[in-house]
Amino acid sequence: MANKNRFSYLLEMEVRDYELDTEQIVNNANYLHYMEHTRHKFCEAAGVRFIDLHNDGIDAVVRKIEIEYHTSLRSGDHFISGLNLERKGPRFIFHQTIMRPDGEIVTTATITCVMIRDGKLSRGDEVAALFKAYL
Amino acid sequence: MANKNRFSYLLEMEVRDYELDTEQIVNNANYLHYMEHTRHKFCEAAGVRFIDLHNDGIDAVVRKIEIEYHTSLRSGDHFISGLNLERKGPRFIFHQTIMRPDGEIVTTATITCVMIRDGKLSRGDEVAALFKAYL
Amino acid sequence: MANKNRFSYLLEMEVRDYELDTEQIVNNANYLHYMEHTRHKFCEAAGVRFIDLHNDGIDAVVRKIEIEYHTSLRSGDHFISGLNLERKGPRFIFHQTIMRPDGEIVTTATITCVMIRDGKLSRGDEVAALFKAYL
Amino acid sequence: MANKNRFSYLLEMEVRDYELDTEQIVNNANYLHYMEHTRHKFCEAAGVRFIDLHNDGIDAVVRKIEIEYHTSLRSGDHFISGLNLERKGPRFIFHQTIMRPDGEIVTTATITCVMIRDGKLSRGDEVAALFKAYL
Repeated sequence: MANKNRFSYLLEMEVRDYELDTEQIVNNANYLHYMEHTRHKFCEAAGVRFIDLHNDGIDAVVRKIEIEYHTSLRSGDHFISGLNLERKGPRFIFHQTIMRPDGEIVTTATITCVMIRDGKLSRGDEVAALFKAYL
Repeated sequence: MANKNRFSYLLEMEVRDYELDTEQIVNNANYLHYMEHTRHKFCEAAGVRFIDLHNDGIDAVVRKIEIEYHTSLRSGDHFISGLNLERKGPRFIFHQTIMRPDGEIVTTATITCVMIRDGKLSRGDEVAALFKAYL
Repeated sequence: MANKNRFSYLLEMEVRDYELDTEQIVNNANYLHYMEHTRHKFCEAAGVRFIDLHNDGIDAVVRKIEIEYHTSLRSGDHFISGLNLERKGPRFIFHQTIMRPDGEIVTTATITCVMIRDGKLSRGDEVAALFKAYL
Repeated sequence: MANKNRFSYLLEMEVRDYELDTEQIVNNANYLHYMEHTRHKFCEAAGVRFIDLHNDGIDAVVRKIEIEYHTSLRSGDHFISGLNLERKGPRFIFHQTIMRPDGEIVTTATITCVMIRDGKLSRGDEVAALFKAYL
């Protein structure tokens, strides 16, 4: 069971039937979509929009994902997507958990992003400054 | 650089523009789609169709994915998706690599699947028997 | 401008960045996803779940879609998806509109579905009975 | 039955299992993806890349789609996607058909696109010039 209070950001979502596969469970790739949407909403809440970063020449790019699927989401399921952010040098590491409303863990992931400026790896200090309340 | 000869199965694919995101690179979740399609084509080549397994009461379910993104695919890119299969008890572990035609590595992943029969974890011996030429 | 009061069902949604394409607008196919999700939520509100119909041997299948794109949704946009249902013999015709919160029309569509039972076209009388409050 | 000879452009494709929904048929939105990919490959064959147009300030935008679903594609199906292009003033109208290898029609669509330059509707004469061999 996950403790919702330990997350910096929480987003309520629900399964859409087009996200299911023939096994009637959410397809594994769609959890990455749920988690990406959560990151972008978190960033928006922090005052940073990915598309603005892109248009300013900074691309946040995913470098590595470790994800464990503990149980499956099905048609009609509601869930909560929680997130914490950690910084290690140029790496922005998102610790993300998808859980049921009662806290049962569905999926946990560690997602490492880096900032690319003009095609080159950046330390991302200007982005980190925007997130300082969460680091 | 990856050596194409070391893979049990290879599939040639190309980027479709609807798989790109606003950064004009393939969205991270789509690599899981590429890799799933490769697993299913590999299984088909081995005489096993996922949908038949499902309709026979056996669901192959993804438990864990570790994926590293080394470089990005863009509009018009052609690529090769390679796969090896390893078995550890009930775990079917797919070692998957997406590379450019010259062997440059784009993405590498380790994807762990298990077999669920009638809602319970199965050792998957009947499935393993079908893959014995590749294990 | 659309009058929200004229719809049988309304659903509030928002754009997720993975739905955008390289033109930074929502990809045309994703509007069909939004509309499908709206139909399924409407059905759920009416007490009918698509997946239960399927598991009972009735598949609601899309036969025809006419969709006009008036303006484009972009990153961060919130929108309202409205729906009315009409029945013409075996055809269930969904009149669907996606609009901005102020009523500006984004997309309108007419989506014709039929019911397939055991592989054959059904009149769908049992399904229609469930929707009688909306027809 | 469709006559493959009457199309300006043909593309062979196959169903990927992640495109199926819980009814074990290809989800209706994915046909728009197949057709978009066909348009982009056709354009590429004609020497026009959508992403280059976008980066040059011209966005090809879908205005209207009429699509009929005659039969359903399922796991493992191979298909052929055919296309003809017609121009009516500023409208580029793609007549697209998805058929089985034996010519049985799966889906037919009429897809109307316009060219947007700097946010305004353009007649698209420069784009039409590139397609003159097909109009």
